[in-house]
Amino acid sequence: MSSETGMNYAPKGMPNRVCKDGEFIFAAAHLDHGHIHGMSQGLIEAGAQVKWVYDPDPAKVAAYCKQFPQAKVARSEDEILCDNSVHLVAGANIASERCAQGLRVMDAGKDYFTDKAPLTTLQQLEAAKEKVQTTGKKYAVYYSERIHVQSAVYAGQLVERGAIGRVIQVLGLGPHREGRGRPDWFYEKEQFGGILCDIGSHQIDQFLFYTGAKDATIERSRVANYTHKDKVNFEDFGDVSLTADNGATGYIRVDWFTPDALGTWGDGRLLILGTEGYIELRKYIDVGRESTSDNVYLVNHEVEKYMPVNNKVGCPYFGQLILDCLNRTENAMTQEHAFKAAELAVKAEMMAKKLEG
Amino acid sequence: MSSETGMNYAPKGMPNRVCKDGEFIFAAAHLDHGHIHGMSQGLIEAGAQVKWVYDPDPAKVAAYCKQFPQAKVARSEDEILCDNSVHLVAGANIASERCAQGLRVMDAGKDYFTDKAPLTTLQQLEAAKEKVQTTGKKYAVYYSERIHVQSAVYAGQLVERGAIGRVIQVLGLGPHREGRGRPDWFYEKEQFGGILCDIGSHQIDQFLFYTGAKDATIERSRVANYTHKDKVNFEDFGDVSLTADNGATGYIRVDWFTPDALGTWGDGRLLILGTEGYIELRKYIDVGRESTSDNVYLVNHEVEKYMPVNNKVGCPYFGQLILDCLNRTENAMTQEHAFKAAELAVKAEMMAKKLEG
Repeated sequence: MSSETGMNYAPKGMPNRVCKDGEFIFAAAHLDHGHIHGMSQGLIEAGAQVKWVYDPDPAKVAAYCKQFPQAKVARSEDEILCDNSVHLVAGANIASERCAQGLRVMDAGKDYFTDKAPLTTLQQLEAAKEKVQTTGKKYAVYYSERIHVQSAVYAGQLVERGAIGRVIQVLGLGPHREGRGRPDWFYEKEQFGGILCDIGSHQIDQFLFYTGAKDATIERSRVANYTHKDKVNFEDFGDVSLTADNGATGYIRVDWFTPDALGTWGDGRLLILGTEGYIELRKYIDVGRESTSDNVYLVNHEVEKYMPVNNKVGCPYFGQLILDCLNRTENAMTQEHAFKAAELAVKAEMMAKKLEG
Repeated sequence: MSSETGMNYAPKGMPNRVCKDGEFIFAAAHLDHGHIHGMSQGLIEAGAQVKWVYDPDPAKVAAYCKQFPQAKVARSEDEILCDNSVHLVAGANIASERCAQGLRVMDAGKDYFTDKAPLTTLQQLEAAKEKVQTTGKKYAVYYSERIHVQSAVYAGQLVERGAIGRVIQVLGLGPHREGRGRPDWFYEKEQFGGILCDIGSHQIDQFLFYTGAKDATIERSRVANYTHKDKVNFEDFGDVSLTADNGATGYIRVDWFTPDALGTWGDGRLLILGTEGYIELRKYIDVGRESTSDNVYLVNHEVEKYMPVNNKVGCPYFGQLILDCLNRTENAMTQEHAFKAAELAVKAEMMAKKLEG
């Protein structure tokens, strides 16, 4: 890194729409998780058009149509799969059903864009890999806590520019607010996949991304159900220690203990430690400061600096995904990375020591 | 916790001197680590008098006498050990020599107050425990990153008052500045004990303290020498995952990578996660804010709050230690706790996976 760039950490420009109206058509099918709204919004801002929406529950469809009135209500998933104009199906199904949906989507000759976790078992992973192989279609994953968070995008730019030298650790904290009115499947491990598979997958995605690793060893993982004694198949805490194939370390912690008084759903943090500096993200809130998202702290040999980057960076993932689908490239995220993060999340869950609450 | 106290987190009063002049006399012997200055200052502020100083290196003695001109230079360690007026000997020896010094001190009928790590092997631990048993003397440890940090003291008060419910995780980050001019022993594992034994012991002390645990299991530990290729017996990174005997979890990370531009020696953090809230300490600096130490962040169901507590809390440890020595009580820290933290630090070091840098 030159001394010029050392003092000049301006984010790259905001991404623009990557295609014209009608060039990239998608449908939203299965709306069990609210992430479908963010997934759709991201695609639309990048130039895509939503043509269809489908869910067995009319209330979810109505909520979707309120935000995206241009979407036509499909009478079945099949009505979408039969429409040759649809390039991609976006889904936020119950986690354990995401893979099966993806297999149907790819069999219909369309790319699939699923909420995380993209799958919940190693058997599903094998089926998904095989289907990608035989159909040539994409099984893209909405690891939103990186790809749809501007401070996380910017951190990637900083690491790429060498602002902190070699990355030797990624430490991610992903507390979430449980809130009230979660559906039953949220509490059933068979369906949500376990806390490390579910919200842990965001963190493993980040660990692989910022360390630049292709693979990793799970050193130790733990899960607990400390306080939800009436939900015997729930997990409210989990953590994982990982070592990347390039020698970098990772530690991730996730939980459902966001306190009521916090001004947002979770005090998500990311600490990236390099040999020449470190970056901290206070992604969604900066406790005790004026409430704003996307707070970046950079310390290296030249600067000790706070950088608010909300609305300065954008989220290029969505435009890249559209172009990847149109051009059959892999710039948004490689299939290998998407599956590796899922694999490690499932394995961390399987290997986890179950703590006595 | 009542709703009244929920909104009222005023620190307890600053501690006062606990004894009169001449009631508690100590000596400083072996000054290899600069911590001896903080140890002495803490004792003196609490009412103790320093009578003697000894080190084989006249330069270290001179530096000590500059800060504490009241100390007489002893011609040998023995001159101190023979003085019946001395209650306690404080030492900051080379880590691997601390136990041997302690055995001599206790054999001379005095209490011992050592810099951390208090010892570097399990054999030393056994010898120290036995000597405590046979002499009835104390082997007190300066785990400075908790006992001599006002925000850490205050965090203990908050936890005790129930401000965050049951503690389910303590996460400690202890980055340190290597700087220039460290002595040779700093780089020799045989002497400094390894990074987890050395600066890791601070973190394990905190983990045990804030979780209220008596013991813990080391789940996984790692050490690495990422960049000090010319110092083959050094470790510049380490981490540990622990589970407390009461079901709480711990994760600690230590390193020697504080970047040049940071305004202090290390961005020490402590995150205490409870079932009803969490506390974050930014102990020595708060990057991007006006530079001050002892920054406490508390979020629970009632508040989301920043509390600067520097010069509002004090460090009661020193007065409690003096009174413990005079009255043969254990209010400052139990011997069991001091040894348990040391034991776990040594074990974490012994069990550590050595990463390829």
